Amino acid sequence: MESTDALSILSAEGFTTPLGPTRPPARRRVDSVDDIFSRLRQGDRGALSRAITLVESARESDQVLASELLDRALPLTGLSVRVGITGSPGVGKSTLIEALGMHIVGQGKKLAVLTVDPSSPSTHGSILGDKSRMAELSAHPNAYIRPSPSGCRLGGVANQTREAIQMCEAARFDVVFIETVGVGQSEIEVRNMVDCFLLLALSGAGDELQGIKRGIMEMADVIGLTKADGDNRLRAEVAAGQIERALMLLPPDPMGRRAKVQLCSAKDRTGIDTIWESISQFVEEDKANGRFDWRRGNQAVTWMEELVHQSLLAAWLRREDIKQATESLADAVRELRTTPRSAANHLLGIVQTDLRSKSIRFE
Amino acid sequence: MESTDALSILSAEGFTTPLGPTRPPARRRVDSVDDIFSRLRQGDRGALSRAITLVESARESDQVLASELLDRALPLTGLSVRVGITGSPGVGKSTLIEALGMHIVGQGKKLAVLTVDPSSPSTHGSILGDKSRMAELSAHPNAYIRPSPSGCRLGGVANQTREAIQMCEAARFDVVFIETVGVGQSEIEVRNMVDCFLLLALSGAGDELQGIKRGIMEMADVIGLTKADGDNRLRAEVAAGQIERALMLLPPDPMGRRAKVQLCSAKDRTGIDTIWESISQFVEEDKANGRFDWRRGNQAVTWMEELVHQSLLAAWLRREDIKQATESLADAVRELRTTPRSAANHLLGIVQTDLRSKSIRFE
Repeated sequence: MESTDALSILSAEGFTTPLGPTRPPARRRVDSVDDIFSRLRQGDRGALSRAITLVESARESDQVLASELLDRALPLTGLSVRVGITGSPGVGKSTLIEALGMHIVGQGKKLAVLTVDPSSPSTHGSILGDKSRMAELSAHPNAYIRPSPSGCRLGGVANQTREAIQMCEAARFDVVFIETVGVGQSEIEVRNMVDCFLLLALSGAGDELQGIKRGIMEMADVIGLTKADGDNRLRAEVAAGQIERALMLLPPDPMGRRAKVQLCSAKDRTGIDTIWESISQFVEEDKANGRFDWRRGNQAVTWMEELVHQSLLAAWLRREDIKQATESLADAVRELRTTPRSAANHLLGIVQTDLRSKSIRFE
Repeated sequence: MESTDALSILSAEGFTTPLGPTRPPARRRVDSVDDIFSRLRQGDRGALSRAITLVESARESDQVLASELLDRALPLTGLSVRVGITGSPGVGKSTLIEALGMHIVGQGKKLAVLTVDPSSPSTHGSILGDKSRMAELSAHPNAYIRPSPSGCRLGGVANQTREAIQMCEAARFDVVFIETVGVGQSEIEVRNMVDCFLLLALSGAGDELQGIKRGIMEMADVIGLTKADGDNRLRAEVAAGQIERALMLLPPDPMGRRAKVQLCSAKDRTGIDTIWESISQFVEEDKANGRFDWRRGNQAVTWMEELVHQSLLAAWLRREDIKQATESLADAVRELRTTPRSAANHLLGIVQTDLRSKSIRFE
């Protein structure tokens, strides 16, 4: 697939000769929005990677291209299913995602897997094991796997991922997985960009529920108990019952539904189809009852608000008098001459003064 | 301890009679800052709980009291050691914290344990098991354990925890643990309010490093490998070597130090003293080389900046024209009449218009 794409670029731009290229062509950047977008619409993975790189880039010229691509992609984004997947380290998330992904591409669907990892802005992924993750799935022509963005521009990983999802959808991917790591803030962010949320938990470890935070359980639409195979199967069934009883303590969703608990094993390839059926059924129900569109609408509004807040703060920090006052107050705080709270009040006092005249100046 | 405190309150306020109280006194709120603060300085745990509740409260009258308490507490905060502790669910964090805590109070020190759990703003803690955590430590007169704040006011859990730390320090606690859950955003927040960061990891599970994200490892000053006992001891030693080699791939801190990896077992009570020695040594070195004060200064500046940003956004959202435009644009975004990005630009355009006249009005 990659080589076909590479060739098609070459021929489109006249780099092939009757004898073929005499040396590997230099890596070139194709920066026309028309070109990237038309290749994106053909499902070209090189163009998709380029588009996501633009979206993640902090360079202003890249951001202009990214904005144009996003504008064009917007009408095309309603057709995919976005699935958030979370689970603590050690539950076998990668192998389960690979098995679930192989099941989905086996149905002739195109699947993109994006990861969100807020724990490391400057590096990404585990210190070991990233390269060999999902080897089978990543080799499949209908799968596209993109690791966590390594940069950190205004708005952070969440907005970059939102925009990467839209690029995948423009490239006609039917299903987009957004994989997140850990049990914290990133789940809340991911829940707010997907249609269905799958929680993976390890069954039969003796403390089945300890690792599942109530807040995460409240977000889950489907719960998969991993490694339910061999000697572990029976304990997994016990754990499933425990979790189902725990779920009864939580209120159901507005449609009266509670998260479905499914046993699964990536090793035995059991339960994988059931998990996908549960996800599909959840999404179909939501499409029928209007919650699918309602949720996506709310997500878009949240996105709008976040963009505004980020820009506002940036404008505040560009104001010269604020910048100077912040610097001198920071020194005072650092030297224990004032408290953070008093210094903040003083800075806000610059606004307060303006408040009396009903205005605040921005540069 | 609790009963002594209760009696001292009673006698101070004339509730005791020669026959003693004839019925349990009704739960009263002692709302004088002078009173709370003087009891706090005596190490009264009832006063400490009250002070932290004020700090966590969203009520304006409580916030006024909280601010006064914080102002008074500020000069008193340099004397404790603040230790952040993280680890994935299942590593045995609670039992290790309890063992480490017992070691510390055994040295005659006073220890407070606070938890940060951003995963659930409306509920807190695991769905099971919270009540029986750290039973031995919580019964010790020199220990104080405070669960995650359950409310969610402006600024979130992080600021509430920062202020709770200061209350503990005003109450003369020598060591404050800030325990966090998961491997995400909360670690970054906690790292930014402590002097030393302890990462707990499970040894000998076969995939020793899988659960440790590079970003977390970069933050750790000390790494404890838990459950290094019995049959697991040898595998734990192997894991320790693996982690030490992985650490060599990361740059050392500016003092040339890399995280120390220590085996420990809460069950056998081994390695607990070594972990505490590593933490103490790290902090002593930082006090000697100036990084302790430098780091606390930076943390205070970050705190100031966060307070400003939160207040700014609140002011923006109180502006009537912004509020109305936000509502109508939200409808447009929800009905797919415009994109989040375009709507955000339009909202910011209200500021842009003002920018031409060099002013933006706040209510």
